[in-house]
Amino acid sequence: MKKTLQEIAEYVGGRIVGDASIVISGLDNIEGAGEHDLTFAVDPHIEEAKTCRAAAVMLPEGVADFPKTALYVEEPRAAFARLLELFTPKLQFPAGVSEQAHIGKDVKLGKDVVIMPFAVVDDHAVIGDRVTLYPHTYIGQYAEIEEDTVIYSSATVREHCHVGKRCVIHCSAVIGSDGFGFTTHEGVHTKVPQVGNVVLEDDVEIGAHDGIDRAAMGSTVIGHGTKIDNLVHIGHNCKIGPNCLIVAQTGISGSTTVGHNVTFGGQVGTVGHINIGANSVYAARSGIIGDMPEGVFCAGFPVQSHAEWLRMQASMKHLPEMYKKFRQLEKKLAKYESK
Amino acid sequence: MKKTLQEIAEYVGGRIVGDASIVISGLDNIEGAGEHDLTFAVDPHIEEAKTCRAAAVMLPEGVADFPKTALYVEEPRAAFARLLELFTPKLQFPAGVSEQAHIGKDVKLGKDVVIMPFAVVDDHAVIGDRVTLYPHTYIGQYAEIEEDTVIYSSATVREHCHVGKRCVIHCSAVIGSDGFGFTTHEGVHTKVPQVGNVVLEDDVEIGAHDGIDRAAMGSTVIGHGTKIDNLVHIGHNCKIGPNCLIVAQTGISGSTTVGHNVTFGGQVGTVGHINIGANSVYAARSGIIGDMPEGVFCAGFPVQSHAEWLRMQASMKHLPEMYKKFRQLEKKLAKYESK
Amino acid sequence: MKKTLQEIAEYVGGRIVGDASIVISGLDNIEGAGEHDLTFAVDPHIEEAKTCRAAAVMLPEGVADFPKTALYVEEPRAAFARLLELFTPKLQFPAGVSEQAHIGKDVKLGKDVVIMPFAVVDDHAVIGDRVTLYPHTYIGQYAEIEEDTVIYSSATVREHCHVGKRCVIHCSAVIGSDGFGFTTHEGVHTKVPQVGNVVLEDDVEIGAHDGIDRAAMGSTVIGHGTKIDNLVHIGHNCKIGPNCLIVAQTGISGSTTVGHNVTFGGQVGTVGHINIGANSVYAARSGIIGDMPEGVFCAGFPVQSHAEWLRMQASMKHLPEMYKKFRQLEKKLAKYESK
Repeated sequence: MKKTLQEIAEYVGGRIVGDASIVISGLDNIEGAGEHDLTFAVDPHIEEAKTCRAAAVMLPEGVADFPKTALYVEEPRAAFARLLELFTPKLQFPAGVSEQAHIGKDVKLGKDVVIMPFAVVDDHAVIGDRVTLYPHTYIGQYAEIEEDTVIYSSATVREHCHVGKRCVIHCSAVIGSDGFGFTTHEGVHTKVPQVGNVVLEDDVEIGAHDGIDRAAMGSTVIGHGTKIDNLVHIGHNCKIGPNCLIVAQTGISGSTTVGHNVTFGGQVGTVGHINIGANSVYAARSGIIGDMPEGVFCAGFPVQSHAEWLRMQASMKHLPEMYKKFRQLEKKLAKYESK
Repeated sequence: MKKTLQEIAEYVGGRIVGDASIVISGLDNIEGAGEHDLTFAVDPHIEEAKTCRAAAVMLPEGVADFPKTALYVEEPRAAFARLLELFTPKLQFPAGVSEQAHIGKDVKLGKDVVIMPFAVVDDHAVIGDRVTLYPHTYIGQYAEIEEDTVIYSSATVREHCHVGKRCVIHCSAVIGSDGFGFTTHEGVHTKVPQVGNVVLEDDVEIGAHDGIDRAAMGSTVIGHGTKIDNLVHIGHNCKIGPNCLIVAQTGISGSTTVGHNVTFGGQVGTVGHINIGANSVYAARSGIIGDMPEGVFCAGFPVQSHAEWLRMQASMKHLPEMYKKFRQLEKKLAKYESK
Repeated sequence: MKKTLQEIAEYVGGRIVGDASIVISGLDNIEGAGEHDLTFAVDPHIEEAKTCRAAAVMLPEGVADFPKTALYVEEPRAAFARLLELFTPKLQFPAGVSEQAHIGKDVKLGKDVVIMPFAVVDDHAVIGDRVTLYPHTYIGQYAEIEEDTVIYSSATVREHCHVGKRCVIHCSAVIGSDGFGFTTHEGVHTKVPQVGNVVLEDDVEIGAHDGIDRAAMGSTVIGHGTKIDNLVHIGHNCKIGPNCLIVAQTGISGSTTVGHNVTFGGQVGTVGHINIGANSVYAARSGIIGDMPEGVFCAGFPVQSHAEWLRMQASMKHLPEMYKKFRQLEKKLAKYESK
């Protein structure tokens, strides 16, 4: 792939300051870009980009006195992402259903599916148009995968689960494993059948090794546009709202409801059966132990406002010294009092 | 499946107040139940159930003045679980060994096994009667799976490991991966061969993406009736007692011994080479750093009694203000003293 | 396998005190060793070994008055590890490529590979000499696996990734899943293509269920000799130095650089885009939120020196009582002042 900077500027909608005829043959980050590459820079990396080897640099409007050929756009990250799609050659997979795949009985297959060797689509499942199933995927009985979804190797969608349009399910993710439900009688735990399912709405991304448990009854739901990082646990009967971001190794306990546009940093945990309001951010390691309102920025375990958490952390640093001084003070006062 | 409330009452052993002839065609939770469904309610949900749409409500003995047809039983959760089994149609799988499975040499297969496409049973393994192996399961050489166990897709039981009767191993779980053991000489780590195995006793449930590491020598043991949630790590040579509950994302370090009936909440961690006494509960996020007695309820990192943890959390909230006041106090006293 | 103690002493380079003609038929730990076994003991287990049933005990030089036949060596752990290799019969796998494996087009296969049933090597991949691929492994397009590497069941190495010599990749690990990168516009998250790869250098060990994300651009790198335990997350564009140890359930956020010989205990977390210096140890549960120098021993969240962390933990125990006394003190002083 080769394009002039002029062609690139037209593709992403940008303004060139410098030589528009430069031929760009690759994209890379500031450090890695060579003399025929385009890179991009936003704060705080603009200074670093001034001396990089790239042929040209994509920048946000407003950066003055840039010593290299520059392509100004409104959102460099987003524009660069579009270019990456353009420049990266797509992997080619043989169209259709591999002879080494297993398709059960009464399965509905859409148009232009790619089903690779050793994928299994079990009886009564429905696979939408242009769905891609990598090797060793297992789509359970009566499961439904809507169009344009990609499921990577060794991922499972268990029986009766529903995956929306344009979803991405990464390697070894498990959709619809049994929820962790038992009744206990005299110390012996008996399984409560988990007869519900999981519904992933459209445009959901599920990370490698995520486990989204099926509901005991009804559905565990992941709202449209929600993106989940690796090694995340979502318990049975959770309802996660649309457009959330859930960073790696977070665990949401069963029957918890989360509003839209909530971000959970890495290694967050929540108890079950709570409501977490929309439009909020929970910093990494937050431990959420009760209902939460909308529109908050929180941290800590138990969770508190991020500002309070910072104050608490600051004062904790003084704790050992304060404790020492406090004991001296006590002794001193005891002496005064005994006089 | 349709049953009269009378038939259901006889099945679970209950007492009807209201119309025993009602025909029940489904089961659901309070919110989801429709006019032909049975639901159940226990505290604190009994008030909510009074106005639900369900045809009838299963209740614990002792609830008076309930405005709908009620079925009183001793343990509504357990009785409802039994009904769920009854009402949920079982998935049908072709009996026997799929022609697309791989069965190694010198393998012993029990009666009425279900071995699905692309399952692999490696040489010298033993598969008990009525065992179910989903697609993409791998049973290693000399491994033994006892009767009535179900192993879901992409799970692995590595060589020489032993799985008891009626176990459930969820998708992508790994039984018998190498323990994390190295000797270090001048900064270079050399692998210590992990030549032991894993023994899962009867009625164990292993969650999706659990990793139960094989012992360096001897066996890592999970006691009978213990149930493990998703994404849990059990290190090499651990001995977990019977009837424990281990919630998601917990990690038990190597060579730790745990007594019977211990509950670990989510995201708990322990150091290795310790003894954790029986009949205890560790709250979510507990960090256990030494031997623990029997019969405790603990929380925090480092772990302490749950009551102490609550007190500490309560006083930590006052810390920033106390620190501020303490510094004012110091200044004031310094002034007094200088007079 | 049977060997005299004399033969064993010659193999590991040791000195016998006692009967050199004893025939050893097995190896086990102190507790498990029977009367024909050799065991080993180092502090603090030497006392316990004096009364064990083993035929002989391997000990470090310097242990005097040992009541059983002893084999003295410089490093008992390392010597015993070598013996375990010798005594444990290797599993036998049919040489070559299983007829039930899938080998894509334009694949290069080295000499003496073992490729088991239902393994998939996709188009243009390169597999080095003596590589072992267990069932249900997936090697993506253009991926390269160098010689003597072993990849266990259901592990994935995605397209364009590179795995060095003598690596071990455990069951269900995922190398090269997409990094978690999105641009957000009016609350809607759009995927940034992750077009980089992962490079595992030589002698790397990757635990079960680890996810090593591919770089957005360029490479995520795991340095030679680094060993990673189970359920670990390594974000996109991380550069992990050589000879590190990363214990289970740790998460390293994207674009973080780690020096050589760094140990992360279990359940550690880091923010992204930081530099963590070489030759350091981070205790379990450390939460690293900024750049870190070389040669430190740290703990806590936010991380601090281990010594400070211990002091803080010690003073925190006194906090509830200090708070109570502080309030009494305040009242008392208020009374004085009002006089």
